[in-house]
Amino acid sequence: MRELTLVALPGIPEVARGADLAGLLLAAVKRAGRTLESGDVMVIAQKIVSKAEGRSVRLAGVTPSARALELAGVVGKDPRLVELMLCESREVMRARPGVLIVEHRLGFVLASAGIDQSNVSGPHGEEIVLLLPENPDASARRIQQDLFAACSVETGVIINDSFGRAWRNGVTGVAIGVAGVPALVDLRGHPDREGRPLRVTQVAAADELAAAASLIMGQSDEGYPAVLARGFPYALRASTVDELIRPHAEDLFR
Amino acid sequence: MRELTLVALPGIPEVARGADLAGLLLAAVKRAGRTLESGDVMVIAQKIVSKAEGRSVRLAGVTPSARALELAGVVGKDPRLVELMLCESREVMRARPGVLIVEHRLGFVLASAGIDQSNVSGPHGEEIVLLLPENPDASARRIQQDLFAACSVETGVIINDSFGRAWRNGVTGVAIGVAGVPALVDLRGHPDREGRPLRVTQVAAADELAAAASLIMGQSDEGYPAVLARGFPYALRASTVDELIRPHAEDLFR
Repeated sequence: MRELTLVALPGIPEVARGADLAGLLLAAVKRAGRTLESGDVMVIAQKIVSKAEGRSVRLAGVTPSARALELAGVVGKDPRLVELMLCESREVMRARPGVLIVEHRLGFVLASAGIDQSNVSGPHGEEIVLLLPENPDASARRIQQDLFAACSVETGVIINDSFGRAWRNGVTGVAIGVAGVPALVDLRGHPDREGRPLRVTQVAAADELAAAASLIMGQSDEGYPAVLARGFPYALRASTVDELIRPHAEDLFR
Repeated sequence: MRELTLVALPGIPEVARGADLAGLLLAAVKRAGRTLESGDVMVIAQKIVSKAEGRSVRLAGVTPSARALELAGVVGKDPRLVELMLCESREVMRARPGVLIVEHRLGFVLASAGIDQSNVSGPHGEEIVLLLPENPDASARRIQQDLFAACSVETGVIINDSFGRAWRNGVTGVAIGVAGVPALVDLRGHPDREGRPLRVTQVAAADELAAAASLIMGQSDEGYPAVLARGFPYALRASTVDELIRPHAEDLFR
């Protein structure tokens, strides 16, 4: 039977800087009455990875540059927030009232450099925002290794976030970091039953699983920041999220 | 327990024009040892819906227009195929060697107007291609009604296809037609635990489920053209795929 099962892991507490994510995940797997099996994929929300890695920034400590001040006027956002977005980006692609689309330093094209202002606040009502992990592939690999150290089971790890799309409303889950899971699965060379090459040749398998997990994670703090997926249909292998990033030379919509 | 389960339905035969899809699906559900339950969502590959609706076209019967001939020279595709792509589209957005990105008459921005040359061929090696369903929402609704007529169970139906993305490699499953499933889920107004509005406000839930199903459908003819999904976390409701189409006025990347 070809079946994919995703379980939203219950009871994961608020994650603090330095938290042992693998430990928290394994406790949640146990709480769900499951055990980690070889070939399972753990999908983890960016938010808790960023929190564990101390990627929060106090807005009060940010001094906006002249460029950030100017851009903040165009998009109508807090200049300190725009300063952080610029620091996290290689290029501003579009700036309109309410919208700032950038190429992130990690290569992703996304709104607001993935900087999440909701769901984070410090003591005394300080405004704190959360940046993407420094290197999400490395974060995923660390968690994968910690899971292996704890259970001797080979799993895949995906760190996911929700991105908008150019021509479709709403966000969907995408992979921003992977370990042990093929980000892209290349079906080129597999002929169909008439012997013709398949029209669809490369599948963004990690994005598809990230979207599936995102669906049951929910979006608010009452959501579930990690999902255990069983039944990923392709062989696990070393991979990197760069496989999913379209090279500039092939980008028709910059 | 918050859990999403997707079962790829086995043994669905080659689908002929006029086929009773709901009947084929229910037989496959039985073959899988399952029963349809209220709240289940059936995700069906565009290919079998198009086949059942007789949306195949013999290339030999197509006469390319002057515009198709010219464009075929640019993109390096069969002029008859380009003629069909133009007929199915409102606008050509990008034309490059090997690539034709259009706005489909249904509003989707996608490559080659979703026309699938693989996996279809007629007797005597005729070249036959498959267009998207005339009205995928109506197709989904019909199947939903047929399922209800057969089992008295309220289900959702999504027709999915695989689209590329502007800035990411590989295709992912997306919804091209829905019935009874919210295409877009609006979380605006749900504050986070600090009382701030959520940054992520609209979730393309039908696309996330379409992607999940696509992952286990596979892409070749050895794949599975329908998936039974249980555990969709939002309330079922009447909807249309138009909810997912970004209006031109909000499109920054045309």
